[in-house]
Parts: sequence; structure tokens; C-alpha cells
Amino acid sequence: MRTNESEITASWERRIEACRDKDIDRLMACYSPAIVYYDVIPPLRFAGFEEVRGNFLRWFGEYDGPIGLETRDATAAVSGDVAFAHMLHLDSGKRTNGLDLAIWVRSTVCFRRLADRWLITHEHVSLPINPENLQAWFGPEE
Amino acid sequence: MRTNESEITASWERRIEACRDKDIDRLMACYSPAIVYYDVIPPLRFAGFEEVRGNFLRWFGEYDGPIGLETRDATAAVSGDVAFAHMLHLDSGKRTNGLDLAIWVRSTVCFRRLADRWLITHEHVSLPINPENLQAWFGPEE
Repeated sequence: MRTNESEITASWERRIEACRDKDIDRLMACYSPAIVYYDVIPPLRFAGFEEVRGNFLRWFGEYDGPIGLETRDATAAVSGDVAFAHMLHLDSGKRTNGLDLAIWVRSTVCFRRLADRWLITHEHVSLPINPENLQAWFGPEE
Repeated sequence: MRTNESEITASWERRIEACRDKDIDRLMACYSPAIVYYDVIPPLRFAGFEEVRGNFLRWFGEYDGPIGLETRDATAAVSGDVAFAHMLHLDSGKRTNGLDLAIWVRSTVCFRRLADRWLITHEHVSLPINPENLQAWFGPEE
């Protein structure tokens, strides 16, 4: 029997695989219709299935080919019908503007179990902002 | 008897009150020693009590007087010993550099109940970034 923790891990790995493959239907199957999404870009929040779907399609469209997503420092907590996970992602790939970028982002993913399925009801993805110049901060040099 | 939802609401309101008052000890009493914090500013993550405490003191020091925090669109989910909440804050006040700013931020707060106390084990606060110029986006004009 799978533990709840492994169900949550499997759930967020499905989400990451669907992002890599830019498979919008498989990706949206991870989300609740009541999803509230705080993304890297404006506005402050995307609310509901259609707004979030449209925003993922916009993101997919920025890449010429697959999206690279490497995960680090993932932690999950599960109890009853509520769970959350947080992790860092190295988001990489060739953009349609010709740039080949790798950017660290922070991701928090919140789940509820509804009709025996774990669905994401809230997600928050961001980059830090450099307070000196108010520009996006693209992570530590490696 | 209080429901779990009202316990979580009370817990995040304590956090907001302590921020407004810049009371570091009252604020840190809301956090787990294992806190992982993704803040508006670099680095990608602050881990552990001392790093998070130091970062709050840095933030408090930017304000000449109290911090204004207005909350909108708050949602919470609780089950067993795990909970999360997300909300928008209008963060306002006179900065020590003389500027009087009001900035919308997104906040996700994740809790675990440990020894019958709800403590924040993860928090994620961010602003969106304008993709046109990679600058922080300061929210809708009102």
C-alpha cells in the first residue's frame, strides 16, 4: 500500500513530467477547478481552471522544444485530506527568442484530496527580486 | 470549541499583528525551528530559525514606524495536523529612505501541528515580475 507521502510525491512528479512534455491536458488533470495560482508574472493571481490553463499555454509557447525542470530540496507534509510541498526548480531550455536560459525558481504546491484524488488547489511560483535595482534575481552563480 | 479553521486563522492573524508591531519574539513564536522561507528578496531560501529571524529584523529595519498589512482573498485548508493558507497583502508604510510605498504581495503559509501547537514550517512571499523589463511589478493601479 502506498503511503500518503508517496501519493503526493507521485502527484507533483506527474505535474513536472507534464510540464516537461508541454502536455496541457495531462498537466491540467493535476489541478482543482478552484485553483488559485500565484505565478512568476503578473497579475497577482490567476483564479480558476481556464485562467491557469491559458497561462500554462503562454509559458509553453516561450520554449522552442521541451522545458527542462530539475528539482532540489523538496519537502512534503500530508495529513488526512490536506497536503503541501515546496521545492526549488532549475527551469531551463531554449526560448523562442533564441536565448538558452537556466533560472532557479521557488515552488510551493498545496493539495486537497477530493473524491479520493489529490488535486492542486493552490500553487505559488516565484523568483526573488534584487532590492538594489528591483530586477529579478536569477539565482546563485554555479 | 474552536474549529481547526479558526485556529489557523487565529495563527496567521497573530503573525500579521506581530509584523505590524515589529515584535520579533512574538513573530518568531509562530514559526517552527525547521522553517523554510522563500522571501521577496534573495537568496532563494532562508532555512532555520536564525536565518528567518535575521531576515525579519532586516525587513523591520526598512520601515520608519509601523508596517501596514491589509489582507485580501484569504483561503485556508486544514486536515489533521497539516494546514495551508494563501492570501494577498497590501504592505505599506514609510520607509527609512523617505519613500511611502504600498505594495501588493502574495503570501502562502504552511503549517504543521506539533505538540498541539500550529507552527509555520514553510512560508512563501513574492511579487510578480514584469516579463517586458524583468522588474518587480507593484500591483494594479487603484
